[in-house]
Amino acid sequence: MKEKPLLEVCLSPALLHLYHTQNTIVVIIDIFRATSTIAAALHNGAHSIFPVASVQECINMKNELVDCIIAGERDGKVAEGLEHGNSPLEYPSSFIKGKKLALTTTNGTKLLHMVNDAHIIVTGSFLNLSAVCGYLVLQNKKVLLACAAWKDRINMEDTLFAGMVVKKIKNYFTINCDSANMALQLTSSVKDDNILDVLKTSSHYKRLAGYGLIKDMEYCTTTDLHPVVPYYDGKALLKL
Amino acid sequence: MKEKPLLEVCLSPALLHLYHTQNTIVVIIDIFRATSTIAAALHNGAHSIFPVASVQECINMKNELVDCIIAGERDGKVAEGLEHGNSPLEYPSSFIKGKKLALTTTNGTKLLHMVNDAHIIVTGSFLNLSAVCGYLVLQNKKVLLACAAWKDRINMEDTLFAGMVVKKIKNYFTINCDSANMALQLTSSVKDDNILDVLKTSSHYKRLAGYGLIKDMEYCTTTDLHPVVPYYDGKALLKL
Repeated sequence: MKEKPLLEVCLSPALLHLYHTQNTIVVIIDIFRATSTIAAALHNGAHSIFPVASVQECINMKNELVDCIIAGERDGKVAEGLEHGNSPLEYPSSFIKGKKLALTTTNGTKLLHMVNDAHIIVTGSFLNLSAVCGYLVLQNKKVLLACAAWKDRINMEDTLFAGMVVKKIKNYFTINCDSANMALQLTSSVKDDNILDVLKTSSHYKRLAGYGLIKDMEYCTTTDLHPVVPYYDGKALLKL
Repeated sequence: MKEKPLLEVCLSPALLHLYHTQNTIVVIIDIFRATSTIAAALHNGAHSIFPVASVQECINMKNELVDCIIAGERDGKVAEGLEHGNSPLEYPSSFIKGKKLALTTTNGTKLLHMVNDAHIIVTGSFLNLSAVCGYLVLQNKKVLLACAAWKDRINMEDTLFAGMVVKKIKNYFTINCDSANMALQLTSSVKDDNILDVLKTSSHYKRLAGYGLIKDMEYCTTTDLHPVVPYYDGKALLKL
């Protein structure tokens, strides 16, 4: 019998160099809120999403692309020069259908650009949890769940999501990675499917709650509202 | 009322640069097995312990110090040119009392030498858990629990120990660190004080069990057998 492929978890971009990404499906995780917004916008009909690192690059996209929305926040507010924010709630079908979205986020975008030899890069969030898990099982290839973290500091929401993926698909993979096993163990603290409740001690919860973004976090911790598998083609994220 | 000092957890030397160590008590954690052996040897009467990075440096110590034991392992065996191994069981009072111990370990020593502006560096292990916790509470200073990890990869045993410290002393500190909260959550998986049972899925358990070192791991996961607080004076570890 063929051995099951490896499943590993990397909890911070600062640890990415410790993992081989060649011939690997890399799942980028930035729950609050880049990869949640990506899942929502693509499922709601966005044509494509262009992740860019800086506000200026985002502004430049307006001239380069037809039908492009430029979006991004800094310190919880729409950044100067941009039109929209990072909230998945801002991208209903009535608004985003058929449009391109240029999105600047700090942590998620940075990690996306750091991975350059993967078999494929996809993005994961609670909003597309089962879709991503189903995809990973069917590919039967080595997987790295890569958490975007917060300025390289390990965070709880990305780790918890990685744990939920491990929990769902572990029977199909070989796991010999302490980060994966610890993330898995963290899922046991989720009671009655209330993911956000577990995250109330997290530093990101406190930061975003301070910006009045509790509704956003409730949305981002709802599972399977947007069953898409976004993948990165080297320039944009598209629906698989 | 004065605010409680910060308590943070750093899960890998590769993340150490994200934390301020100035004016901070840094607790170095390398459960399998450097900081366990340090606690055992000092409690059993060793005069001092010299942590060195390489086998050659360790061999050189033999000429520099009177009454010096040179010890260290590579791949689970006593390294060529050295006299003893990394096991805490090798250093009973009858053998180590009054002697100096030069010890080469990879992960723990590396981290010890990376921290250079701390208020003080102490070492922690299950063998001296309560002694270290009592010391930290009494100092009433900022604390960083720094895990040695395995070649920079986060490991479960160091994280679990950090969580046990957090659990014991959290009421005396301000905690706004996701790694600390996740380590704390990991402690809930310990049933009937059987720490080693939780670690059976860990990669280090598998590696050391492969070397036949299960007795060592049982010893290293016993709490409070060696109630000392080892501190680093810039050259050697001494009993506080």
